[in-house]
Amino acid sequence: MSEYRCDPITGKWVIIAADRAKKPDQFKKEKEVKQPPAVVASCPFCSGNEDKTPPEIFVYPASRKPKDGPGWLVRVVPNKFNALGIDERNIKTQPLGLYYSMTGYGAHEVIIESPQHDIFFEDQPLEQMKTILHVFKERMVDLYLDNKIKQVVIFKNSGQEAGASIAHPHSQLIATAITPIYQKGELQGAREYFKNKRSCIWCDMLIQELRMNIQIFDTAGNVVKEDPPKIRLVFENENFAAFCPYASHSPYEIHILPKRHSHFFGNIGKHNSLEIDDLVQMFKIVLQKLNGALKDIYPGRVPYSFGLHTSPNMNARHFETIEEDFHWHFEIYPVVSMLAGFEKTSGLDINKMPPEVAAKNLRETIVEENKDFCSK
Amino acid sequence: MSEYRCDPITGKWVIIAADRAKKPDQFKKEKEVKQPPAVVASCPFCSGNEDKTPPEIFVYPASRKPKDGPGWLVRVVPNKFNALGIDERNIKTQPLGLYYSMTGYGAHEVIIESPQHDIFFEDQPLEQMKTILHVFKERMVDLYLDNKIKQVVIFKNSGQEAGASIAHPHSQLIATAITPIYQKGELQGAREYFKNKRSCIWCDMLIQELRMNIQIFDTAGNVVKEDPPKIRLVFENENFAAFCPYASHSPYEIHILPKRHSHFFGNIGKHNSLEIDDLVQMFKIVLQKLNGALKDIYPGRVPYSFGLHTSPNMNARHFETIEEDFHWHFEIYPVVSMLAGFEKTSGLDINKMPPEVAAKNLRETIVEENKDFCSK
Repeated sequence: MSEYRCDPITGKWVIIAADRAKKPDQFKKEKEVKQPPAVVASCPFCSGNEDKTPPEIFVYPASRKPKDGPGWLVRVVPNKFNALGIDERNIKTQPLGLYYSMTGYGAHEVIIESPQHDIFFEDQPLEQMKTILHVFKERMVDLYLDNKIKQVVIFKNSGQEAGASIAHPHSQLIATAITPIYQKGELQGAREYFKNKRSCIWCDMLIQELRMNIQIFDTAGNVVKEDPPKIRLVFENENFAAFCPYASHSPYEIHILPKRHSHFFGNIGKHNSLEIDDLVQMFKIVLQKLNGALKDIYPGRVPYSFGLHTSPNMNARHFETIEEDFHWHFEIYPVVSMLAGFEKTSGLDINKMPPEVAAKNLRETIVEENKDFCSK
Repeated sequence: MSEYRCDPITGKWVIIAADRAKKPDQFKKEKEVKQPPAVVASCPFCSGNEDKTPPEIFVYPASRKPKDGPGWLVRVVPNKFNALGIDERNIKTQPLGLYYSMTGYGAHEVIIESPQHDIFFEDQPLEQMKTILHVFKERMVDLYLDNKIKQVVIFKNSGQEAGASIAHPHSQLIATAITPIYQKGELQGAREYFKNKRSCIWCDMLIQELRMNIQIFDTAGNVVKEDPPKIRLVFENENFAAFCPYASHSPYEIHILPKRHSHFFGNIGKHNSLEIDDLVQMFKIVLQKLNGALKDIYPGRVPYSFGLHTSPNMNARHFETIEEDFHWHFEIYPVVSMLAGFEKTSGLDINKMPPEVAAKNLRETIVEENKDFCSK
């Protein structure tokens, strides 16, 4: 059984997955298991190999029968090497002197994005990408019915250098009984801003990024710095904007935001059925631009991770969040730099690629736009 | 010129090193430069190649002449690709609508640990290691004379997998005009604890780790969990203790703490001249144990980073810290896992190696103890 442990100094949680390292050599073995399978026959995520995963949690289309057989388009199964589990129905907390731990209550699921083994996320047919995003939404809504779950994080690692252990296209989901520190930081910052301004900080940031021209003058009245509108914009369509954030932590970091305020990814498409279509187009174009802009460094595909930042579980009401202050978004991190001693010691990232330069390079990288599909 | 930029949502700073990416291909070039030199003749850190670095800041022994010639044991030079600089004597802040930036005031130095090209830190002669730690102290004390500097972080990346760009043994130092987020978190947590308990949290943690036996009982009165003393201890001598922290973020993470309370690394040896000798012994033993315990994964040397956590600049008085609440220490991170999408999205680390197992493996790894040198 895994457990959450709280750092007594900083209050930061970690997950200790104890069962995975009972033997001293277990640690190494797992490293080896993590290599991508050489042949498709051995791939647990390929259609026809459904018996190689734990029983499925969800499939699309739902009409597909029998359970754990072929015929699915997207399939969700528990992660075999799960970091958290929902076996234990009770969350037990254990104080150990200065220390404090909690049962590893939660969920760790794999979203198998296609029955096909060798296709990249950004190359999937448009309808298939819509289905994947639809499944993200369904799983999130379902897990938030459990008010012991405080946060669901959906993420993807593409390419071995980004930490993908299996080549077959898949994303993952981790549902936690605690609020992870980055989510906590975002929620607190957004709440504070809303309290002062009665406005969502991401909505205000979109206005600044898309419309405002900001200049800084020296004492003699000369412009020393200028931020014209869209200087950090990568691409926009009717419903979404993608930009390299002002305080990018790493080179070519990209955030994708819905233009209309919405705190919860589970509500996508509720007010406008074309939203999901526009998000699919956005992902396709942005990832193709990344591959194009970085093709000299990565001649094949850029390894990247992305994560979905969405509101915590409002049913759990664990945090003072209201629907007005949080704005869901995706964050994409291409793997083009590494964290070394300084970043690990200080948490202060050194980014050698100003977001304005990255955004310009991405804007100037021409890709096929799939115009038919776009609502614009 | 580089700049600090503040994330408008979380308040987290990043350093944008703008000058390093003026051309779109600059980014790739730098990646190539980062390969270790094939031959010593091309190594800028080797004795005889002093003209290949910027002019030196400090050398040991100080009596060595002429400047930037050979004859040194440890040499400190500015990092050629510096992330921060002290050229600009004024810190300018620039609000840009929602955003906020600050001149990249600070320092980025390289501590060349030996005139010899091919020696690992842990293999250095004892006297040489003492000299290196002495230089750490001298640089830190000197930089804290500038009250625009808020924090000095000394760190080391050993091995290419840990981010070392040059094979020649060296550590680095970054001095910042802002307080990095991890330091902020530690300072706030320690301050809070001190306010409540009138005690240093690290001192109390040492008591718990070294002396206390803590048991947890179920409702029937049976022991369900037990933490005997020294369960996470790796090694101790008269003046230092090394242990795997309770909430370890990554496998085989090790913290080295002085047993006597001290907020500032610059004071090492002030009350007890054998402190620095014991720290040298500690580093040697702990790093040799790491190499031994992980030799199946890394047949050569384990790539690792370490960082020095010490009090902020008390001259700057930027934060409500007092000498009683902070306790300097080193943190060592072997590179045996990577951060992927989940950790990048949530900040919640999943550690597959419980610190109790890691510490046991390290304790059971036999190494030469250099007993003559130890004060115990």
